[in-house]
Amino acid sequence: MIDPRVASGLRDLLPRAAIPRERILSRFRETFARFGFVPIETPHIERMEVLTGKGAGSDEVLRQIFEVTNKGGTPGELALRFDLTVPLARFAARHENELGFPFKRYAIGSVFRGERPAKGRFREFTQCDFDTIGSESPLADAETALVIASALSLAGAGGFTIVINHRGVLDGLLESLGLADRSGPVLRALDRLAKVGRESVASELARESSSGGAGLSDEQAARVLDFAEQGRGGRDALATATAAIAPMKRVREGVEYLNLVLDLLESASPPGRVVVDLGLARGLDYYTGVVYETTIDGYESFGSVASGGRYDNLASLFTSRKLPGVGASIGLDRLLTVLEEARRMGSDLSPTPVLVAYFPGTRATTPFGLAARLRVAGIGAEVYPEPISIGKQMQYGSERGRALAVIVGPDEEKAGTFNLRDLQTRKEDRGLDCSVLEDSVESALEVIKRERASK
Amino acid sequence: MIDPRVASGLRDLLPRAAIPRERILSRFRETFARFGFVPIETPHIERMEVLTGKGAGSDEVLRQIFEVTNKGGTPGELALRFDLTVPLARFAARHENELGFPFKRYAIGSVFRGERPAKGRFREFTQCDFDTIGSESPLADAETALVIASALSLAGAGGFTIVINHRGVLDGLLESLGLADRSGPVLRALDRLAKVGRESVASELARESSSGGAGLSDEQAARVLDFAEQGRGGRDALATATAAIAPMKRVREGVEYLNLVLDLLESASPPGRVVVDLGLARGLDYYTGVVYETTIDGYESFGSVASGGRYDNLASLFTSRKLPGVGASIGLDRLLTVLEEARRMGSDLSPTPVLVAYFPGTRATTPFGLAARLRVAGIGAEVYPEPISIGKQMQYGSERGRALAVIVGPDEEKAGTFNLRDLQTRKEDRGLDCSVLEDSVESALEVIKRERASK
Repeated sequence: MIDPRVASGLRDLLPRAAIPRERILSRFRETFARFGFVPIETPHIERMEVLTGKGAGSDEVLRQIFEVTNKGGTPGELALRFDLTVPLARFAARHENELGFPFKRYAIGSVFRGERPAKGRFREFTQCDFDTIGSESPLADAETALVIASALSLAGAGGFTIVINHRGVLDGLLESLGLADRSGPVLRALDRLAKVGRESVASELARESSSGGAGLSDEQAARVLDFAEQGRGGRDALATATAAIAPMKRVREGVEYLNLVLDLLESASPPGRVVVDLGLARGLDYYTGVVYETTIDGYESFGSVASGGRYDNLASLFTSRKLPGVGASIGLDRLLTVLEEARRMGSDLSPTPVLVAYFPGTRATTPFGLAARLRVAGIGAEVYPEPISIGKQMQYGSERGRALAVIVGPDEEKAGTFNLRDLQTRKEDRGLDCSVLEDSVESALEVIKRERASK
Repeated sequence: MIDPRVASGLRDLLPRAAIPRERILSRFRETFARFGFVPIETPHIERMEVLTGKGAGSDEVLRQIFEVTNKGGTPGELALRFDLTVPLARFAARHENELGFPFKRYAIGSVFRGERPAKGRFREFTQCDFDTIGSESPLADAETALVIASALSLAGAGGFTIVINHRGVLDGLLESLGLADRSGPVLRALDRLAKVGRESVASELARESSSGGAGLSDEQAARVLDFAEQGRGGRDALATATAAIAPMKRVREGVEYLNLVLDLLESASPPGRVVVDLGLARGLDYYTGVVYETTIDGYESFGSVASGGRYDNLASLFTSRKLPGVGASIGLDRLLTVLEEARRMGSDLSPTPVLVAYFPGTRATTPFGLAARLRVAGIGAEVYPEPISIGKQMQYGSERGRALAVIVGPDEEKAGTFNLRDLQTRKEDRGLDCSVLEDSVESALEVIKRERASK
């Protein structure tokens, strides 16, 4: 007998996890489509060269690559993708003459990283990415935030905050302090401000660069931290924090760009809040303009559930054509963790709200035909496959989220009637006429929906 | 510069392929859910031992396995799944105490086989499987055919035929001819009857078993072929073809079972046709009861687009618990090939039917806000991100399937109006009031929908 376990760091999703996941993914797809984003698919397996090209992934990610070989194949040639961005870059370069720009695509799929297994960290996880490629317009930046907001709202995420910044502003500050060459360690330290607090970041900024710190003077560290703290909020905070460095061109342009994005977002009245945070650093190696992070209100410590930004040149590894763009990635696994923690998983009626149950002695065609009629009328219904005890059939239905049971036995069969039981209240209407099956069930479901909505 | 090609035998899906694919998958998910099937997910990577256990896959499939290794991992330990059935068996065994039976699951995902690359054959392809595990009731068999029929119908497949057979009947025939030990080569030959015709199968059946044939006498071959040809149709064909061997218990039981499945299906009036074909062999090594194949009418030569059957014991490799079940797999790639060939890909309105275009000199917030209003009203809309020439914006919209353009310029902005252009007829209504934007667009879309439907 073979042990049915999964490999270390991988997992099975049981229906209780897979059902809300599937529901949220279908809402994401719906949202992306509403904005004119179209799906593409790339293989899970890429050529190794594509994944390990200079700058494709961080050293850490490259160490975690899963190599793939088949009999007769050359070792070291193929690997599993570790994100959806490198495949997008390859795709855009390969099909640059067929796509038409601006090209707005979404992609939802598994990516693989051989990380050390740990609680809540998996070696296969799902990314939900969308990007607008081939546009330098701030409309595309504002739309990116609006898509995040619409997707989270449709997924039932409740209150959330989208934080935006512009790389030019933060770069300008560092330049004004003579710290342009230390942006790497400064930004890495700043990124942890919300998590670890000012004091801890200050000591990180002041630590000798020889021991991995940023090597700032106490005064420089204070300036950086003041700037990050003052520059959190709306237009006023943006103006106040940048007043001293506003004469610098890149700062002025960054501030104007952020204000324009805020204007556009205001015109669209998105759900959730959008705030500026001049301390938001977020992978600035790759991003060159606006950057985004999103947290669920009250659950900030879980980290960002949707992040992204603008880049100058998506596919420089693969084509000489310059492809600027902007995009974001929704972290499905983290979002689901937060929603479960926040008990915001939704209590929609199951897509199969009806169980058709039958007593022994009933012809199987009777319940089977009734369930088929309900489905044709657009009402999900299943028949318990064996005429076991009605109590056990009811239990099966309740455990699977059925709201109503249509029950038939030999007597009902003869009379052309059925009984309709509410599986929660156990109230039962008996002897309803089969000719009005669909209407009766639909009305009963409407009542249940209204009752649940009013709770 | 790195070559942006994909590895041999793999492929990118551009939007024109990915959009109909996504639409059909969402209809499959909807169908499965309507019948009470729930999603599960298993990792793309399984332990090698799970995939190569005795009987998990054919020798051919095992030769095609992709091995997976990461730094620090042990070579030979992990591999990519080659189907969704072996992972289901492992899953059912691992979680047998949590699932509750009957357990009805669906799974949609990529599987990997290192086949020799050829036209239309890919090393990564999608399977759409659904199974009812833990029930021996013919209701579950009939439901399997009904799910296939409902899914194909909802996917817009047009006319199709589901062919069913029962292993017991074919086994009984071979036994009555003293050929029980030759069922393997006989069934493999029979499986090609529709494709290559009677004569070719007859010579295959008569060929010496030492050279890979079935080694039947001419009379035996004729009996088998007569049986297969007579036994195609409805209940009458079933009765006629089996009359001579009906006294055998397994034949009688098989015929009764098939008749019961036909009764159940009749009570549900499924779309499409269901016919019996006593010559349908279909992987009888694995299946033990009813088997299914499905062809699109007029495109039979493309082969089956949905196949499956009943099995006695799903997970004997992993658990001593006996798990009988029945299920089927819809071949998405083949179905899409046929639908494209048959021009049945559907001409639904795009989920983003509106382009909001704007003349230079318009504030970007105006089109951006109008598009947002449309989306809130449930109408997909996108803004072209730059105020390039209106003609080019219209072209962009037409190419992407937008039906209507909402157009604004500085004059409209001042007057609070917009122009509405039908992108197909180029008819334009000018100076419509922005306060009735949603209603105007909705009515215009209704007209377009009605016109397209009447064509």
